[in-house]
Amino acid sequence: MKGYVFHGPGQSAWEEVPDPGIKEPTDAIVRVDAVTICGTDLHILKGDVPEVQPGTVLGHEAVGEIVEVGGDVRTVRPGDRVLVSCITACGRCRYCREAAYGQCLGGGGWILGHLIDGTQAEYVRVPYADLSVHTLPAAVPDRDAVLLADIFPTAYEVGVLNGRVRPGDTVVVVGAGPIGLAAIATARLFAPERIVAVDVAAARLEAARSLGADAVADAGEAPDQLIADLTTGLGADVVIEAVGVPETFELCTRMVRAGGHVANIGVHGRPATLHLEDLWIRNLTITTGLVDTHSTPTLLRMAAAGRLPTSELVTHTFPLDRMQEAYDVFGAAADTGALKVVLGGPLREVVAVQPD
Amino acid sequence: MKGYVFHGPGQSAWEEVPDPGIKEPTDAIVRVDAVTICGTDLHILKGDVPEVQPGTVLGHEAVGEIVEVGGDVRTVRPGDRVLVSCITACGRCRYCREAAYGQCLGGGGWILGHLIDGTQAEYVRVPYADLSVHTLPAAVPDRDAVLLADIFPTAYEVGVLNGRVRPGDTVVVVGAGPIGLAAIATARLFAPERIVAVDVAAARLEAARSLGADAVADAGEAPDQLIADLTTGLGADVVIEAVGVPETFELCTRMVRAGGHVANIGVHGRPATLHLEDLWIRNLTITTGLVDTHSTPTLLRMAAAGRLPTSELVTHTFPLDRMQEAYDVFGAAADTGALKVVLGGPLREVVAVQPD
Amino acid sequence: MKGYVFHGPGQSAWEEVPDPGIKEPTDAIVRVDAVTICGTDLHILKGDVPEVQPGTVLGHEAVGEIVEVGGDVRTVRPGDRVLVSCITACGRCRYCREAAYGQCLGGGGWILGHLIDGTQAEYVRVPYADLSVHTLPAAVPDRDAVLLADIFPTAYEVGVLNGRVRPGDTVVVVGAGPIGLAAIATARLFAPERIVAVDVAAARLEAARSLGADAVADAGEAPDQLIADLTTGLGADVVIEAVGVPETFELCTRMVRAGGHVANIGVHGRPATLHLEDLWIRNLTITTGLVDTHSTPTLLRMAAAGRLPTSELVTHTFPLDRMQEAYDVFGAAADTGALKVVLGGPLREVVAVQPD
Amino acid sequence: MKGYVFHGPGQSAWEEVPDPGIKEPTDAIVRVDAVTICGTDLHILKGDVPEVQPGTVLGHEAVGEIVEVGGDVRTVRPGDRVLVSCITACGRCRYCREAAYGQCLGGGGWILGHLIDGTQAEYVRVPYADLSVHTLPAAVPDRDAVLLADIFPTAYEVGVLNGRVRPGDTVVVVGAGPIGLAAIATARLFAPERIVAVDVAAARLEAARSLGADAVADAGEAPDQLIADLTTGLGADVVIEAVGVPETFELCTRMVRAGGHVANIGVHGRPATLHLEDLWIRNLTITTGLVDTHSTPTLLRMAAAGRLPTSELVTHTFPLDRMQEAYDVFGAAADTGALKVVLGGPLREVVAVQPD
Repeated sequence: MKGYVFHGPGQSAWEEVPDPGIKEPTDAIVRVDAVTICGTDLHILKGDVPEVQPGTVLGHEAVGEIVEVGGDVRTVRPGDRVLVSCITACGRCRYCREAAYGQCLGGGGWILGHLIDGTQAEYVRVPYADLSVHTLPAAVPDRDAVLLADIFPTAYEVGVLNGRVRPGDTVVVVGAGPIGLAAIATARLFAPERIVAVDVAAARLEAARSLGADAVADAGEAPDQLIADLTTGLGADVVIEAVGVPETFELCTRMVRAGGHVANIGVHGRPATLHLEDLWIRNLTITTGLVDTHSTPTLLRMAAAGRLPTSELVTHTFPLDRMQEAYDVFGAAADTGALKVVLGGPLREVVAVQPD
Repeated sequence: MKGYVFHGPGQSAWEEVPDPGIKEPTDAIVRVDAVTICGTDLHILKGDVPEVQPGTVLGHEAVGEIVEVGGDVRTVRPGDRVLVSCITACGRCRYCREAAYGQCLGGGGWILGHLIDGTQAEYVRVPYADLSVHTLPAAVPDRDAVLLADIFPTAYEVGVLNGRVRPGDTVVVVGAGPIGLAAIATARLFAPERIVAVDVAAARLEAARSLGADAVADAGEAPDQLIADLTTGLGADVVIEAVGVPETFELCTRMVRAGGHVANIGVHGRPATLHLEDLWIRNLTITTGLVDTHSTPTLLRMAAAGRLPTSELVTHTFPLDRMQEAYDVFGAAADTGALKVVLGGPLREVVAVQPD
Repeated sequence: MKGYVFHGPGQSAWEEVPDPGIKEPTDAIVRVDAVTICGTDLHILKGDVPEVQPGTVLGHEAVGEIVEVGGDVRTVRPGDRVLVSCITACGRCRYCREAAYGQCLGGGGWILGHLIDGTQAEYVRVPYADLSVHTLPAAVPDRDAVLLADIFPTAYEVGVLNGRVRPGDTVVVVGAGPIGLAAIATARLFAPERIVAVDVAAARLEAARSLGADAVADAGEAPDQLIADLTTGLGADVVIEAVGVPETFELCTRMVRAGGHVANIGVHGRPATLHLEDLWIRNLTITTGLVDTHSTPTLLRMAAAGRLPTSELVTHTFPLDRMQEAYDVFGAAADTGALKVVLGGPLREVVAVQPD
Repeated sequence: MKGYVFHGPGQSAWEEVPDPGIKEPTDAIVRVDAVTICGTDLHILKGDVPEVQPGTVLGHEAVGEIVEVGGDVRTVRPGDRVLVSCITACGRCRYCREAAYGQCLGGGGWILGHLIDGTQAEYVRVPYADLSVHTLPAAVPDRDAVLLADIFPTAYEVGVLNGRVRPGDTVVVVGAGPIGLAAIATARLFAPERIVAVDVAAARLEAARSLGADAVADAGEAPDQLIADLTTGLGADVVIEAVGVPETFELCTRMVRAGGHVANIGVHGRPATLHLEDLWIRNLTITTGLVDTHSTPTLLRMAAAGRLPTSELVTHTFPLDRMQEAYDVFGAAADTGALKVVLGGPLREVVAVQPD
């Protein structure tokens, strides 16, 4: 089969690789019908994630059909259409018993396209299939469903649930890339009074508005002052960090009210400064997290009921074998306006869904 | 009357000051029977808390008797023996309605010995008396009760409750001064599997053991390794910071398990480094806070039932008029072994309760 | 002035009564601009609430203008436009400190139109005004705001929050009268997957649909079977009782899934049967409650932001002096289609907002 | 091998039965070293649990050694000493993913000694062994460990956790049989101000005191009045029902304060009356539940640390082959004073630990 293989920093290709097969009785083999590219994949290509070995097929999000299962797999069988979660769960360890699958101690967690071959291929082997794939409702198209493999549960769990968004809240989302936009979309599930999006790019702020932000702020123009003005000086109830650099994290801690929540979703490469000389007295709760995907069944129900604006995030689609082109478009998002790019078999033509 | 007056950095004296009187109908005047000195008072004396104006009587903790009340005070009357809370609460603002009294927007919060004259005097005016003093159960002596004005609710709310200590947990308390010891004592209310105290001073670690620590670690000898060993490499469920310097805060974030809690109690004067490049993925919850004292009624019931080891924290007692001597002993804790010093009328003799 | 006075079962009149005056320094006098009638008022008229003394002015919901305040009132002053909450809060007792104002031990709780003269009059005295009235945002008209005095916080707190409605849930509301409709409207704030309304009246089910119910069921046609069918036999996550008779409560316990919540809002006059022989094993949580109105500030923000469909519940408006006619229309809801009737000064004409 | 077989109401015997063998690759075979008898077993013998088929080996609690495992079992292996939980968990269904194992939809839940052969035998087959047995710490003897198969997690989860016991609470436990005593013991983990035990038998109230009850009340002597007196008329914060008859459940609802919790543990055979005409206004939370055993790992750590008074509940021990005698002693508890009887191999002699 073909797959997109990492060969070390700056080197990768869509090329022939061996077909995956069942290795453990808990494995399933899935034929990939739709796959997407994550910002993390770009980090891997740059060499920022050293534990990814050259030769690894990338990708940790997919929709597809089960073609084979090991002897212990009980909840799915060949022919089932499934979502492949970005998180694999052994189901037996201490963390899995608490549904904290992202911290699995039994060989799961984030392993696809990281420690083992991933989903950017024609077929993928999924370990611990019973807890790591989800049967898909017919009402959710592949292109939408694939966004529930990672960015929607990440935005919802690590941003919205960790941040404890409540009806009537003022919520600020810093960073209006795909993950920030998904945070805006899922924060709306809790009916905040207002959501304010902060970014440097006008196009992303425009997308934020269309996903449900009530106000937007240019990151360069004192967004903390805007938030203070909107909240009679108190600050926001919840601030969600969806960028991953120290400056934006520190901005978040300046925009949150006493007693409020800062929920970090961003993947950081450098330490931030925590101004405890100001913050010790302010009753803050700061959370971090890798997604657990415990909310995926709920989000699938919401998507099937038409209550998640998944399709608005997909700006480009490609056939699977034009993976490199998809990477190029996604990697140049500032120029191409790409949010999420989706690749898949029956999506033969390049379609620019959003602005040209 | 006499009071202990701050006259600017390095200058203070027990001296004659005007008697306080009722200014607002919600005020009460309390005759001080017992008072203690807080680490924060030492900071003020050094000039670290610039909003304290010269001429202010210090102190924010007391036990005493109501001698006069304003016309709107309904829950106490002259003759009542009360605890004066370190936090004053207007009871009407947004934060007070959520019992977040420490963040009071209506003129309360931490004001005694800070923005208005405090408790280190023969009499003190307490604003918003209905919500800012607590009638004392007869079973709790002055000397014990005064510890419930600040350090016990602070340790319990900001350390133990914010840290969400649960039965079976491994809890680490960094800093075994009075506040850390009170955190150990109140963490025990939730039956953790083990409490580990970390400090640099052998005497304080000894006190930690007597307050209920199951294990102790010298801060200089890789306490994070000890915690890893005790927890099969996972880290502690809850880590409580009770020092207030960047190094100890950062140590806390290295000792906590994925999915665990870091509860900061320490009063910090400098920023800390938050290693988000390691921590973003670890599902941490980090909290900060000034005490709200919402737990004071509960703690008073617990003290009356003999379930709080308050008296073990009082190492020295003085008559009220030897305030300067008490400050000297408390300020030289490393040499004197002082934990809490209590001053009061009927405690005429200097008594060294703990080791000499 | 004029007020609507209860003179014993079956006897009441809009008649001349003495003007209210300040009795306590915490009182405020409010000129009533809008008032509504609650189902509880009908119970009082029937004699079902024996603690209401003949001679009492009825009503516990109002919007109006402060005309006088006692000396201790700090948060409102004459000229302020306010919502008069159905619950009065002393702010000092154990329950008020936990924001459980409905259970106030200090002379508050539900007292207006119950233990003291109420709001169905030209003026009303409101005790403990600081915590018992709320300044109104200009954006919320009287007619809408008055629904936030009781039915919206009741539906939200006692139904939706107690029932712990979550995104993705199946929620059943039994009873589509005003309170059940407000439960549907506020359940939507948490983005359930579906809300099913159950009632005997087709018109009310129609109203339920317009307020956001996704499905409706006739109470006489095995609604428990419908719920089972919708949920693959499991039952609903949350069932809200908004009728107040044993049969509907028992129906609720048959429609809830194992691990689910039954939130009782209904005011009951008779005991129900709790089938513990079936339910002991089903991990249910059953809650009851009088409203605390702790959510009123949040709901006011939501109303000001246009996020509560208050106006859809008002079917009839009257001038204040046609109180008896309003009672007649509201009391014959089955015939008149009345949901909420609102009375007030500037609403001079009888307007049938909804179907005739 | 030998096992204790139910042959229909009133008929049972310790007799020869076939050895169990692996049927599914997720099974384990455990050699039983210690087993106990549950009140539920007595109900089965009387015919109260009709789904138990004649021919079934009874018992759902055991400690033993793994002797064989199926091909998919990963967390235990032959030679491991394990606790057999009363609840079996598939680990894959909706409920298991939320750790609500008692409601398992995948063939688990309470099945041992109920729907399949149980633990009162020399060997037992345990389905879904990975999530249904727990490796035992060496520090916990068999006799103590076997109490963690059912009654300790049941008392803790369904009584104490569902009841939300908090430091400073007044907790009432109605019924001082084994499960009520375990509720008293585990309520103490949260440092309530006081625990009051209610029962009809003086000997059980005596046992309650020794397990940590601060006060006891004869059920026949107006215990609700005692509770009112202890709580200035308010009622208890938490009331735990550990009997299972309507009268005691109804008593619980009279002893709880407004805003409090009633946690039902009792196994009921008849409906109770829920006095909603009084309770609708009192902000109660009533919970029911079958144990999930999600707390078993925590309780095992607590037992290993010597923090659970398990051994005080074991009044009698027998060798395994004197099962009938053990049933006789346990079934006549009123006369024999039996709390828990434990049977096992190395416990050769009948030992009356408690009063004779």
